[in-house]
Amino acid sequence: MNETDEHNIEEDGFAEVVKLGEDDPLQLSSGETLSPFNVAYKSWGTLNTDKSNAILVCHALTGDQYARGKNPLTGKEGWWPKVIGPGLPIDTDKFFVICANVLGSCSGTTGPKEINPDTGKVYGLDFPVITIADMVSAQVKLIDYLGIEKLFSVIGGSMGGMQVMHWAVGYRDRLRTAMPIASTWRHSAQNIAFHEVGRQAIMADPDWQGGKYAESDARPHAGLSVARMAAHITYMSEKSLTSKFGRNLQDRDKLTFGFDADFQIESYLRYQGISFVDRFDANSYLYITRAMDYYDITSNYNGNLTEAFDGTDVKFCIMSFTSDWLYTTRESREMVRALNAVGAQVSFMEIDMDKGHDSFLLDCPEMFNIISGFLSAEAEVAGIKTNE
Amino acid sequence: MNETDEHNIEEDGFAEVVKLGEDDPLQLSSGETLSPFNVAYKSWGTLNTDKSNAILVCHALTGDQYARGKNPLTGKEGWWPKVIGPGLPIDTDKFFVICANVLGSCSGTTGPKEINPDTGKVYGLDFPVITIADMVSAQVKLIDYLGIEKLFSVIGGSMGGMQVMHWAVGYRDRLRTAMPIASTWRHSAQNIAFHEVGRQAIMADPDWQGGKYAESDARPHAGLSVARMAAHITYMSEKSLTSKFGRNLQDRDKLTFGFDADFQIESYLRYQGISFVDRFDANSYLYITRAMDYYDITSNYNGNLTEAFDGTDVKFCIMSFTSDWLYTTRESREMVRALNAVGAQVSFMEIDMDKGHDSFLLDCPEMFNIISGFLSAEAEVAGIKTNE
Repeated sequence: MNETDEHNIEEDGFAEVVKLGEDDPLQLSSGETLSPFNVAYKSWGTLNTDKSNAILVCHALTGDQYARGKNPLTGKEGWWPKVIGPGLPIDTDKFFVICANVLGSCSGTTGPKEINPDTGKVYGLDFPVITIADMVSAQVKLIDYLGIEKLFSVIGGSMGGMQVMHWAVGYRDRLRTAMPIASTWRHSAQNIAFHEVGRQAIMADPDWQGGKYAESDARPHAGLSVARMAAHITYMSEKSLTSKFGRNLQDRDKLTFGFDADFQIESYLRYQGISFVDRFDANSYLYITRAMDYYDITSNYNGNLTEAFDGTDVKFCIMSFTSDWLYTTRESREMVRALNAVGAQVSFMEIDMDKGHDSFLLDCPEMFNIISGFLSAEAEVAGIKTNE
Repeated sequence: MNETDEHNIEEDGFAEVVKLGEDDPLQLSSGETLSPFNVAYKSWGTLNTDKSNAILVCHALTGDQYARGKNPLTGKEGWWPKVIGPGLPIDTDKFFVICANVLGSCSGTTGPKEINPDTGKVYGLDFPVITIADMVSAQVKLIDYLGIEKLFSVIGGSMGGMQVMHWAVGYRDRLRTAMPIASTWRHSAQNIAFHEVGRQAIMADPDWQGGKYAESDARPHAGLSVARMAAHITYMSEKSLTSKFGRNLQDRDKLTFGFDADFQIESYLRYQGISFVDRFDANSYLYITRAMDYYDITSNYNGNLTEAFDGTDVKFCIMSFTSDWLYTTRESREMVRALNAVGAQVSFMEIDMDKGHDSFLLDCPEMFNIISGFLSAEAEVAGIKTNE
């Protein structure tokens, strides 16, 4: 959706890839282990001497580590160009900012499209089913590797916010502040339902071949494209679809009485589907949506959100968007209420924006101000120094 | 969703099928014609001597003419068993009730799965793209055939309501009252988007074969099933999905860390998809969703709803449901406002029910009372007599 001039995007190079878990396997929620596994990450800014200025930015379902600068895999601008950078809300002049591709994804971190070291073949469905907690466990190993004891902040939108919550609940001593945006504390039935439609679309594609498509030249592009189209509707609001497309026709002045894309919304959706398959792996889509469906931050706490937060001294800054019907304000409020109930420090803002769930990826000055203000204030409280 | 005992459903027999348009071809919105074409319909009750007690009930996207009694094609109960019948809201002791399978559908009325009389082969994609207006044109020919000059009422929910609106706007002299339920006056961008996902899912299925699957043994069941799953989510409310399924697991006490249907909502959706393909034709699904997307009651009136209603003496009774996010109360209110602006007679009720769009098909006493009350009062005003 970024309409920036690609020629003006800062070149930022490929991610670092580190091999982790060789001596100390990654314990997964399923009981299985991964050893070794790779994590691909980018970083910006400079880690200060006492390693107190590190911020981990967590990406969403189809995101990656290329949050800013040109993504060398796609040639497109990163997904949070107005948030991370010198003088921007997550200020790389002050903070050392890390963004890692999540476990199970397909931009360099180990996932179903990578080689299984035990067999020398592509994992495919032999990759273990993972959870958001497992993604965070992998990130913890990266942070250990980087020698960082305590993150100044963990920040992310949507599935990124789920990782933030797992950090805050599972590793509360390893972070000072947490900023989940447009996110939730457990995946709802409706959201599981939309994901299940996407998975069934992929699995219905004969080119999926039971997940073994890497052994052939075919890829389940048709199924993945349909999955993306269905998901994309949920990322926008009815209002933004109406104001952006309405019933406008695409490059024609009347209905064609056929099954071509008569309406702009059809053409737009098809483009979203088709362009997605070039940059994303179908099996990764299955694994990551599954991880999101499994997400329930209270699962180790008898379904009790208050219990999950009890005793935390992490400071929370929670944001939701009025028009987000995927992860609604109600769900953010439930987190705020539970945090208040245990006397935790939490600030909450519902941002009035009509672009739906994807608002957190768009030009939203109010969100920028909140991120900037919260981080600055907390950095002052914590006495964070930057190396001169 | 009906959990009635199938053995207790009244046997009601197959529909009548009439061949129409032999001498007088059906003029379609596209400019094409159909001649002849079949209409399959059911009727209940007795047409009175002055033919003033006829009610046309219009079905929704995947509905059919078997509104009450046992559907002989599926063995299941009809879709409006508590609405149509002796002593029920649409009282077959008083009214002669007709329900016809819509043009383009697959339960006996001419559609893409029927034989093209010009070629002797199944139509497939040679069937012309039709509109809601065309469905109504076919119904008008049926009503002519039945010798009925003026319908007492035209009633329907969802796409049925769209047909009601086309009757009311296009054939205002042919009906006395109109009752669109959970419907709208033009298909929104979001609704077009959901339909487009469904169509792409069907067309992505190699068994669809460019629409020519009738020439083989294969059917695009996988694609049609995915289309149905995506649509089904939109028929329910987030609240009803949460209260009915939440994050409950299906026949297991813990997550399996696999891609089986761990959650009840997944299992339910898969069942909705799989059971649908046995009763519905994939090409019909393409044609009917297209007709709905093309639907805009103002298209001949410069986009002006008031103009469309100007001068009408049809009496309207409009209903919406609080939890319906597919055809929202807002859209019904827009119709009410435009009808008020032209001094038309309109009553409107927003019914507080949390089951989403499908509420109109469910046990909803408030809706039953409104239908019953409106029809009784209008029948009295009109002096409708039933044959003794």
